[in-house]
Amino acid sequence: MQELRLATRWNDFDALGHLNHAVYHVYCDEARDAALRATVGDFDAWPNVVVHASVDYRREIGLGTREVVIRTRITEVGRSSVRFEHDIADGAAEATVVLVAWDPDTRRSRPITDSERDSLLASPVVAP
Amino acid sequence: MQELRLATRWNDFDALGHLNHAVYHVYCDEARDAALRATVGDFDAWPNVVVHASVDYRREIGLGTREVVIRTRITEVGRSSVRFEHDIADGAAEATVVLVAWDPDTRRSRPITDSERDSLLASPVVAP
Amino acid sequence: MQELRLATRWNDFDALGHLNHAVYHVYCDEARDAALRATVGDFDAWPNVVVHASVDYRREIGLGTREVVIRTRITEVGRSSVRFEHDIADGAAEATVVLVAWDPDTRRSRPITDSERDSLLASPVVAP
Amino acid sequence: MQELRLATRWNDFDALGHLNHAVYHVYCDEARDAALRATVGDFDAWPNVVVHASVDYRREIGLGTREVVIRTRITEVGRSSVRFEHDIADGAAEATVVLVAWDPDTRRSRPITDSERDSLLASPVVAP
Repeated sequence: MQELRLATRWNDFDALGHLNHAVYHVYCDEARDAALRATVGDFDAWPNVVVHASVDYRREIGLGTREVVIRTRITEVGRSSVRFEHDIADGAAEATVVLVAWDPDTRRSRPITDSERDSLLASPVVAP
Repeated sequence: MQELRLATRWNDFDALGHLNHAVYHVYCDEARDAALRATVGDFDAWPNVVVHASVDYRREIGLGTREVVIRTRITEVGRSSVRFEHDIADGAAEATVVLVAWDPDTRRSRPITDSERDSLLASPVVAP
Repeated sequence: MQELRLATRWNDFDALGHLNHAVYHVYCDEARDAALRATVGDFDAWPNVVVHASVDYRREIGLGTREVVIRTRITEVGRSSVRFEHDIADGAAEATVVLVAWDPDTRRSRPITDSERDSLLASPVVAP
Repeated sequence: MQELRLATRWNDFDALGHLNHAVYHVYCDEARDAALRATVGDFDAWPNVVVHASVDYRREIGLGTREVVIRTRITEVGRSSVRFEHDIADGAAEATVVLVAWDPDTRRSRPITDSERDSLLASPVVAP
């Protein structure tokens, strides 16, 4: 499990005075990047794209909240995909996101190599 | 079924030269607003918040795409929730989003009235 | 003078219930792209970057505003730069933006050719 | 002079692989909020809106840049306005922004009180 502490920004909040639902996806992006940097490398070294995202919103995150903690776990490494679970702000929301290793030349997903898989699975980000 | 034609913006696209995954949520927001305006009214008249969103991304939407068509259906009206299905750009992505009728004073969900339910279910946005 | 009618989006508005000041820049971007498309071509054909932007905000644009009209004029074509003036929402704001023709290979500005200059100056976008 | 170290986010960068010009305004917002928090208080205590913003962009901030430092000075306190100068990423850009103390009830600017002015002028954020 990995923890990322993110500074909110004024325009992350919408006219209802709470964190806009689309912004949770932006935050989780940063959390996954941090998790991947700790294993297979940064985005340049390990390009990827999101193929699935699902979020349950349980509680508002109000205007004035200056930091949000994202807890991230890798829960599955597939043929070309990695599944992440995110907890946002102690249960304010929960997200499941699947990304695929991506080849920028073909603009397609590519298989994850054995060494990458080992790296991902040996990571402290892996559950539990 | 309702169709919304949305103009993209330069900064909807990210450094991979395709529509950023978080932006799909922004587009679907506009599509739901348009669908609700055609039934129970605009956001002022019928405030609501998203409680669940799930997207499957099947195909990139490349830089240079100037318009995206969102097709929207209401597939379920619950006690306080409405479920929407969105098709983004002819199958480039598919989204399921659940929102709840929201009371800005209590900042909580509230039951959907019978008249609102009738309105929502009589709408041409309702499937099929 | 060119007129672009832009659809606002829910999250263009911030917690004060008005159009966020940074979003005006996003709108003017779209207006300049439209103006350039009508003369030297789209962004692919004529890449450019902003080197100066100045905005005076005179009046709020309130939540619920569904369209904003941007009026755009080209007021100067320099060696490598083009100066634009934007009127946003009938005087709600006024912007001056300077961009430069940009070479993506060298990542530097480049001189505007005579034929490009003629094209820009013959454009109906040119003042008055 | 005050220094704010801001974490960038993936979608702050656009399809040219550099920090999008509109995002500089978002960063400077955070820097001004931090500066005001150190003097007259947070946004709730001291609501304000931007009335002028001017930026000169001198150098790209490339994709992969993970932190940006904003240096902020208050250079003038007027009747209802405060003028800020920002240096972004060691000269990559320079911004001048004027905001006004704002009354959320009347939705208008209001005079800065003597005690607020003293507070602002006694601040370490004040130049030089």
